[in-house]
Amino acid sequence: MKAEEALLEISSQKPLVHHLTNYVTVNLVANTTLSSGALPVMAHAREEVVEMVSLASALVVNIGTLHPTFVEAVLLAGNRANERGIPVVLDPVGAGATSFRTQTAERLLSELAISAVCGNAGEISTLAGLAAEVRGVESLAGDAKEAARKAAGALGVTVAATGETDYVSDGERTLAVSNGHPLMGRVVGSGCASTAVVGCFAAVGGADAETVAHALAYFGRAGEVAAGGAGGGGTFEPLFLDTLATFAGNPDGLEDSLRVEEASG
Amino acid sequence: MKAEEALLEISSQKPLVHHLTNYVTVNLVANTTLSSGALPVMAHAREEVVEMVSLASALVVNIGTLHPTFVEAVLLAGNRANERGIPVVLDPVGAGATSFRTQTAERLLSELAISAVCGNAGEISTLAGLAAEVRGVESLAGDAKEAARKAAGALGVTVAATGETDYVSDGERTLAVSNGHPLMGRVVGSGCASTAVVGCFAAVGGADAETVAHALAYFGRAGEVAAGGAGGGGTFEPLFLDTLATFAGNPDGLEDSLRVEEASG
Amino acid sequence: MKAEEALLEISSQKPLVHHLTNYVTVNLVANTTLSSGALPVMAHAREEVVEMVSLASALVVNIGTLHPTFVEAVLLAGNRANERGIPVVLDPVGAGATSFRTQTAERLLSELAISAVCGNAGEISTLAGLAAEVRGVESLAGDAKEAARKAAGALGVTVAATGETDYVSDGERTLAVSNGHPLMGRVVGSGCASTAVVGCFAAVGGADAETVAHALAYFGRAGEVAAGGAGGGGTFEPLFLDTLATFAGNPDGLEDSLRVEEASG
Repeated sequence: MKAEEALLEISSQKPLVHHLTNYVTVNLVANTTLSSGALPVMAHAREEVVEMVSLASALVVNIGTLHPTFVEAVLLAGNRANERGIPVVLDPVGAGATSFRTQTAERLLSELAISAVCGNAGEISTLAGLAAEVRGVESLAGDAKEAARKAAGALGVTVAATGETDYVSDGERTLAVSNGHPLMGRVVGSGCASTAVVGCFAAVGGADAETVAHALAYFGRAGEVAAGGAGGGGTFEPLFLDTLATFAGNPDGLEDSLRVEEASG
Repeated sequence: MKAEEALLEISSQKPLVHHLTNYVTVNLVANTTLSSGALPVMAHAREEVVEMVSLASALVVNIGTLHPTFVEAVLLAGNRANERGIPVVLDPVGAGATSFRTQTAERLLSELAISAVCGNAGEISTLAGLAAEVRGVESLAGDAKEAARKAAGALGVTVAATGETDYVSDGERTLAVSNGHPLMGRVVGSGCASTAVVGCFAAVGGADAETVAHALAYFGRAGEVAAGGAGGGGTFEPLFLDTLATFAGNPDGLEDSLRVEEASG
Repeated sequence: MKAEEALLEISSQKPLVHHLTNYVTVNLVANTTLSSGALPVMAHAREEVVEMVSLASALVVNIGTLHPTFVEAVLLAGNRANERGIPVVLDPVGAGATSFRTQTAERLLSELAISAVCGNAGEISTLAGLAAEVRGVESLAGDAKEAARKAAGALGVTVAATGETDYVSDGERTLAVSNGHPLMGRVVGSGCASTAVVGCFAAVGGADAETVAHALAYFGRAGEVAAGGAGGGGTFEPLFLDTLATFAGNPDGLEDSLRVEEASG
């Protein structure tokens, strides 16, 4: 599904997007979801995750501040999401930095039917079995296109490797998304927020490569526009949320500025 | 207590307001408290909640990211707050969405002497035993006035049901507060933040219907003013905090713009 | 190390700064770290803290929302940090307010080799065994200079007591930092954020009194500049992050505006 249709659908359905996420960027993730037209909810207790995800149209899992009880909650919610057939989007934050993160990402991919994986080049390279350098939660090296294609092929799911250019692959087809702005890297959680938008799009359009790529293009385009008025990462963040909401409220013509292309090479 | 007097008292007493709250909007809740002139503190470990609440002038409980250990902490802190006679304000976030939230809200109301309950129409309807639709933590339907009145009568506490118009009832008298701006609904946590302001007012003025209504009117009025300079929910939030602080620092004349009336019908 | 050299080193090394911190101000702490040119990471599970801190150049511990499992994680990470010889910076948030916080701060100082302690006058006075009044996490009284000097002497580490003037002492030499702006006290977490910057400086320059004082001076100077465009604490915060990043990206001439002096008396 392309951006304009997805945003109109989100606006009319107001899907509930259930996030199991980290406590560093949780507020930005929630506001990004709301600004994109969907309703965010966070609920992680084993006493309620299953019931909450039963109300949701997508589940977004982000392992940014991982803990064993969090993994339990993800498995409970993920299994219910799978039963219900709603998309499950995984952001493997920090995979490659610690074995707990790498192994947890692999475990979730093995025990749950994940619809899409979105991470930076280092994290996706790690999951693809390629060499990568991840310093904490930051990717320092890695070929995003190769990583996305390899990981998608190996895992059998849609994979997005984000960076200056984002690459989205289903193993056969790989799309390049070149919207975005360097200021987005000066805000903690822009990766988490982009995965949240993928979750919103998936809630109405599923998680095929085109839908995921269009989510990232919408996200990147909002960044380009917001950056025009920003003096740095600090003032960028509120302007960015405004811009996401402006496009979500009126996506007419947005697609003219989106740069989603078949990746060459 | 009316807004002007309450804000002057908060400014002179600098009461400590102890929040047991969710991790999604905790930063906004803390900054709202500080901007309103009070001192926020968050402390949830059983090892210290009792001691911390012993320093506080009000306790605000928000079940937005509920967990069993959180409930334990609330009971410990709430019992001590009751012993000390300080107000306890409850925001039953998501009551009606999952049984864990509904039952926990009911349990807290049964085991603690709660002074005021503040929630959206769906949450309050749920506690009043009325039909409601709560999607995650968002109310999709419900008659706020009826819910506030019924819940206040049934529970024997002051109840605020917030929405486009907020209704505050003690079971006999019901006040309508019509300050506010639609942009407030475009920021995650504006409901949590309004409950935080109720906690600040309660710390100096108690939790009768008039004081709660004036807290919400001050909150809504700050939203109206801040919205004038905002381009969306993102830029609204910092302007809103500024405006809360401006009014808190100089509430002279603020009451002229507050719209608190006896609810008709 | 002085500010200009430290910021250039941070910019070139991009050190990973591992934060074990509270959930109230964690986002500001992360963005402050990133804006200062370093890479923040938060990871608290016993399953990964040791591995994560093994990648880091400094560990910053902030006890703002304390819990026993958090203390375990701090001890694991702190011991590994000590083995590796990287600096460990402690912000004893709320020491003096509850015995759990006071005792935990003392325990960490006794079981770990802490490099620097940064807190407000009340917290530092508490650790120095002086009379203090801490309301929640806010210092209401205390002589910062005397507290810093006494605590540094007693603990044998660099100590910063922040306030209108910050005092940094190693027990023998005491520096006064008079950069800063009152708006910084109108944002929740400015103390946490200043400790984060000390962690960034320590990652490249160690935690001697001069380096700590220059970190606080850079922080305070950014506050002065940002305050010029702000209407309150709300709009101050994003401008402040922008300004930190601007100075970090080009520290040339910054030191001319820093006011770091030997404390008299």
